[in-house]
Amino acid sequence: MQWLRIASISSDSSARQNVHLAAEWVKNKFEAAGLKTESFETAGFPLIYAETPLPATEGEKKPPVALVYGHYDVQPPEPLELWNSPPFEPVVRDNQIYARGATDDKGQVLTHVIAVCEWLASGRTLPIQVKFLIEGEEEVGSANLEEHLPRLAETLACDVVVVSDSSQYGPGRPAITCGLRGIATYELFVDGPSHDLHSGSFGGAVMNPAIALCHMLSSMIDKDGRIAVAGFYDDVLPIPEIEREAWKRLGSDDAEFARSVGVDTLAGEPGFTTDERRWARPSFDINGLTSGHQGEGVKTVLPAKASAKFSHRLVPGQDPKTITQKLQEHFTQHCPAGVKFKLKPDHGAGAMLADASSPYTKAASIAVESSFGVPPVMIREGGSIPILARFQEVLDCDVLLLGWGQNDDAAHSPNEKFSLTDFQRGIQASAALWQEMGRI
Amino acid sequence: MQWLRIASISSDSSARQNVHLAAEWVKNKFEAAGLKTESFETAGFPLIYAETPLPATEGEKKPPVALVYGHYDVQPPEPLELWNSPPFEPVVRDNQIYARGATDDKGQVLTHVIAVCEWLASGRTLPIQVKFLIEGEEEVGSANLEEHLPRLAETLACDVVVVSDSSQYGPGRPAITCGLRGIATYELFVDGPSHDLHSGSFGGAVMNPAIALCHMLSSMIDKDGRIAVAGFYDDVLPIPEIEREAWKRLGSDDAEFARSVGVDTLAGEPGFTTDERRWARPSFDINGLTSGHQGEGVKTVLPAKASAKFSHRLVPGQDPKTITQKLQEHFTQHCPAGVKFKLKPDHGAGAMLADASSPYTKAASIAVESSFGVPPVMIREGGSIPILARFQEVLDCDVLLLGWGQNDDAAHSPNEKFSLTDFQRGIQASAALWQEMGRI
Repeated sequence: MQWLRIASISSDSSARQNVHLAAEWVKNKFEAAGLKTESFETAGFPLIYAETPLPATEGEKKPPVALVYGHYDVQPPEPLELWNSPPFEPVVRDNQIYARGATDDKGQVLTHVIAVCEWLASGRTLPIQVKFLIEGEEEVGSANLEEHLPRLAETLACDVVVVSDSSQYGPGRPAITCGLRGIATYELFVDGPSHDLHSGSFGGAVMNPAIALCHMLSSMIDKDGRIAVAGFYDDVLPIPEIEREAWKRLGSDDAEFARSVGVDTLAGEPGFTTDERRWARPSFDINGLTSGHQGEGVKTVLPAKASAKFSHRLVPGQDPKTITQKLQEHFTQHCPAGVKFKLKPDHGAGAMLADASSPYTKAASIAVESSFGVPPVMIREGGSIPILARFQEVLDCDVLLLGWGQNDDAAHSPNEKFSLTDFQRGIQASAALWQEMGRI
Repeated sequence: MQWLRIASISSDSSARQNVHLAAEWVKNKFEAAGLKTESFETAGFPLIYAETPLPATEGEKKPPVALVYGHYDVQPPEPLELWNSPPFEPVVRDNQIYARGATDDKGQVLTHVIAVCEWLASGRTLPIQVKFLIEGEEEVGSANLEEHLPRLAETLACDVVVVSDSSQYGPGRPAITCGLRGIATYELFVDGPSHDLHSGSFGGAVMNPAIALCHMLSSMIDKDGRIAVAGFYDDVLPIPEIEREAWKRLGSDDAEFARSVGVDTLAGEPGFTTDERRWARPSFDINGLTSGHQGEGVKTVLPAKASAKFSHRLVPGQDPKTITQKLQEHFTQHCPAGVKFKLKPDHGAGAMLADASSPYTKAASIAVESSFGVPPVMIREGGSIPILARFQEVLDCDVLLLGWGQNDDAAHSPNEKFSLTDFQRGIQASAALWQEMGRI
């Protein structure tokens, strides 16, 4: 709760001090537990590193090294009016803890921190070495971690990166996530007249930037939900049949899924199931629209400008830089006469695939079953953890995604929550995981 | 300047007191000049009425009665950061007075108020009776004046309504405006999921309300600038050839017009000139767009809702209620599955045409030439003064639109201004007008 009270919003420049405080908090936690701890300064927020002692080795056999990765920054809490309790004043209702960051990602990070701290507190040495890297810019693209990664390669050297920043497949259905989508985020600016114009004196004779913006955004995706940017799907790798089959056996229920998000019906790219659309097909979302008069009442202006924040989720095969080029070409073609546009790319990262058959995945399955009572299902998730693909490249390691959250935990939304039961199970599964890895 | 300092923004409920203060100010002005003055209370803001004494009549001949109509409310000043000086702290730069309301409409109303006050102050009686009706809801549709108009018919009885709430054709080119466009304003709400969703976990599987909104708005107008709502043009009356010919002779310059608003090129409905598009063809403008994250930085959400404020300018033949029906049908057809829409009509009014050959128009031509040094050109304007058509119906009178402003006065925009030279000429023309009308 102390950690959740810190409004560590990495995208909000006015919250800078809070983000540093959140870093301090977890650093102190590691130090208190006697871990060797370091804070690597960056141009942005510090990278908090900690490691347990090397276990005693028997002869040749070298026990594996696991690196737990997570983040102490959070998404903005807006819209505030939709929260039932203040986002940074955590409360427990019905065995759920409500706060921004409860599940994404402070609560889930803490399961591993506590598991290791308890293990050490009990006086026993861990059968493997566990390292921690907790950053403060995951929600804004991890640019600084990416920059520092190469020079930290030796420190962070490991066999597997363990991440808990995702969800179970459903209540009581723990999952190991073997793939994540990539991401590319943008802001699109459309500029028209030098100032807002009277829509009576000028309407019909001067291109309206908000209309131009709607035309440009509408042209990106057809009415059926297929992205209409030329070449957008060129590099998309098809979903392996074996995974499509396995996912169908998960028995997801579209009607129930629609109810859970409060819509009458789902919508998306034709020819794919809901899980396929969410996990393994690229998507386009407008994240924000801004133009003209947004206050109360009527103001009959022809606005000088309009802008949109939008993002794509990418899948294996797609490269954010290529997507940016295709978008630039698309908008150049579709920008109406009488206005100018500017496409500003923010951050981008490719998709990530993990090895579902690695010994670490097997160890994780045993550990998860021992704590949750059922074996985990193998899934993918639609979210992005941009840095994981870089870990795989730079550290030449496996990745193990063990999500303790639920799909309805409202990450990035009002009333974000995390189940205290899943919190406890996560701690137990984490402790058991180090045990099982010791047997590899 | 006293009047301009009062931020009488009728669409802003927090400015209510200011709007009443602006009403008081002009009422006091009339009383100080010795006019018989009344304030008619309404559900909204008061209607300020004043009249000059009836002139002595010679035998049968009954001198005409003119009703000066104007408004003391103003548009919102936003965006404030684009003003070179605060909108409600009037300043004079280069012989122009800068303030919200300078030209629309306080400054122009004042030309008639001053002309009549000076006339009376000089001790002479006016050759005609001049009445004033200054309202406080012109910028929000004049609903209350419209409601009270019938029961005020006797008080307001007149031969011609004189309005100065428009512009000259250009600098040194005074105009008599013989037509105005009507208006229909709306807000369109699109609702999707019950709360903002994580675009990673849900993107591609749930309809994005902001994308739905862009599809729906984009579908309203084709890329060439022709409105694509079925039946939208059904009732549009063609522009009389005689007017089209006269307007072409005005010699408007598209390149210069584009420069004056700061765009490279103009755009609009094919087959019509810029003046025709602005004055006599219906238009569609998005006045505001709102959805999702508008603050700093990235927030990868699938927003729960999106909305737009938009408006149409209507031309003779078109009825706002019919347009609302056609829009409702259009959106019902074009609303994507997975979201719901709500179309909220705000205010609507038909277009207005004045009699260019009436004796009042002839009197005005002489008066304007005597003060501006050149005869006025006959034009239309694209703006709307919703109540004028109602005046014509209820009071069975002519309408005379004498605009003293300029197209670049930035009405409804930052840095609204009014030329002090035009202000003076307006006062002289107004005084001469009563003289000329006395000769009818």
